[in-house]
Amino acid sequence: MLSSGKRRLFSALLHVQKRPCQPSRAMRLVQFQTPHLEEPHLGLESGIGGGVVDLNTFDPTLPKTMLQFLEQGETTLSVARRALATQLPVLPRSQVTFLAPVTRPDKVVCVGMNYADHCKEQNVRVPKEPIIFSKFSSSIVGPYDEIILPPESEEVDWEVELAVIIGKKGKHIKATDAMAHVAGFTVAHDVSARDWQMRRNGKQWLLGKTFDTFCPLGPALVTRDSITDPHNLKICCRVNGEVVQSSSTNQMLFKTEELIAWVSQFVTFYPGDIILTGTPPGVGVFRKPPVFLKARVATRLSYS
Amino acid sequence: MLSSGKRRLFSALLHVQKRPCQPSRAMRLVQFQTPHLEEPHLGLESGIGGGVVDLNTFDPTLPKTMLQFLEQGETTLSVARRALATQLPVLPRSQVTFLAPVTRPDKVVCVGMNYADHCKEQNVRVPKEPIIFSKFSSSIVGPYDEIILPPESEEVDWEVELAVIIGKKGKHIKATDAMAHVAGFTVAHDVSARDWQMRRNGKQWLLGKTFDTFCPLGPALVTRDSITDPHNLKICCRVNGEVVQSSSTNQMLFKTEELIAWVSQFVTFYPGDIILTGTPPGVGVFRKPPVFLKARVATRLSYS
Repeated sequence: MLSSGKRRLFSALLHVQKRPCQPSRAMRLVQFQTPHLEEPHLGLESGIGGGVVDLNTFDPTLPKTMLQFLEQGETTLSVARRALATQLPVLPRSQVTFLAPVTRPDKVVCVGMNYADHCKEQNVRVPKEPIIFSKFSSSIVGPYDEIILPPESEEVDWEVELAVIIGKKGKHIKATDAMAHVAGFTVAHDVSARDWQMRRNGKQWLLGKTFDTFCPLGPALVTRDSITDPHNLKICCRVNGEVVQSSSTNQMLFKTEELIAWVSQFVTFYPGDIILTGTPPGVGVFRKPPVFLKARVATRLSYS
Repeated sequence: MLSSGKRRLFSALLHVQKRPCQPSRAMRLVQFQTPHLEEPHLGLESGIGGGVVDLNTFDPTLPKTMLQFLEQGETTLSVARRALATQLPVLPRSQVTFLAPVTRPDKVVCVGMNYADHCKEQNVRVPKEPIIFSKFSSSIVGPYDEIILPPESEEVDWEVELAVIIGKKGKHIKATDAMAHVAGFTVAHDVSARDWQMRRNGKQWLLGKTFDTFCPLGPALVTRDSITDPHNLKICCRVNGEVVQSSSTNQMLFKTEELIAWVSQFVTFYPGDIILTGTPPGVGVFRKPPVFLKARVATRLSYS
């Protein structure tokens, strides 16, 4: 949802359904809130579009933030695996507010021009090295939160992306070891104010990319072992129900392993760090004429 | 200190001197470690180059990180003020390891070309708007930690800067209200790999600016009320004892208030956020011929 106002307030009541969880084999970790909880909890989404199992009720010793959960590594993951294998009560989706699956990471690393077909629509050569920029983590919002349309920009655009979530600290990580550093994947929106990205701020992209609410994320962190091939996923973005981006992650020029190896030459990765791996074609700015988001235009992102 | 090796290990023993603290009126907040502490503590530096009063011993209910200290605002600041007014035991400086005064902030905002005299040495016009880029907070190290010279760069350069530490959350902050959002100031080093900043990564500056250890900070967060005029401070950088940068913060094009107003159009500031306000002239890359840092070249930064 895009809005020039404040974020939508979720006010649904909490009812724990007695229907047991029948989870798929995929582990879909979420951070969620309900009106009855004092603070957000960790949970398992019981399949795409399903309800939520409260992991902190299942095991009250588990941390309540994904960052702390990931920092504890295999210890906490094994608890989540036990929960996944157990029939547990499911909170109906209508009664849950999904937060971003990771909040307050050390870094949000972004990759520019990383889809062969996106380079073609810009009429530019594919880059020889990954082009790395960033968003501040203060730009992260939940997957169904509203995006605030800033009065400072006239050219707010969409960019659906596959996001990698780091699970294990590392520096100078080899591409062959990189997947062992991945906790899982989610879907992200690299919302971009093209005027600020392309023509202002000395052409440094940061400001156009990092307005508050410009990084919707989630709902679920799907663990690495739940995905057969992260580089063969359909990825699409809808605006007002219309598909505006539709591609496959097989179009990525630099895959997850190469990106982790590249960026970890420069920085230490920490659990919870996020890599937005670039967007496929179909963004508004390269349409003729260009199209930008307006207040109260609904956007929905998905990959499968 | 610059080194191609690991950071220096501090192994001095802790002895609490019985000499009472005779603090200046300036409040100089630090994060420090000693071999006898399980985790870093908050402290007060008893003047420039002086020992440290342990704030967590003075009041064990105080948080142990600057981020949490700043989040509690006036409540914790008033405890530090009481400590400053009391004669307390001082840990000798030789027995203390200073960390950066803020670690793991939400953001490290950086400003490019913000000194009139630095623009002149580059032979470029002064910018009409602030130019904003960033470092990841993983690049922050303590003021006396070694800077790791990365094998990936041949052109590592120095940049001393006045750093602003945010004390109060805010968005769309007016310049006239901005100082109320400032906790204090410290000195920073915006270490820069010029090859990566200027010629690689699609000319996005991030990678050249954010190698691990490229943001030495501190030692002290000097509170706002301790500084008469932050825009009339001498600022200098020494390499191997030789002064390589020497200017005044009165040369800043966009002052603290304007920078906070500008950046808060885009993002919400949180307590602990850091703004590196730009560097004066004298950097290595614009010398003829250019000069860059080498392994085991000592650098010392100061402003007064």
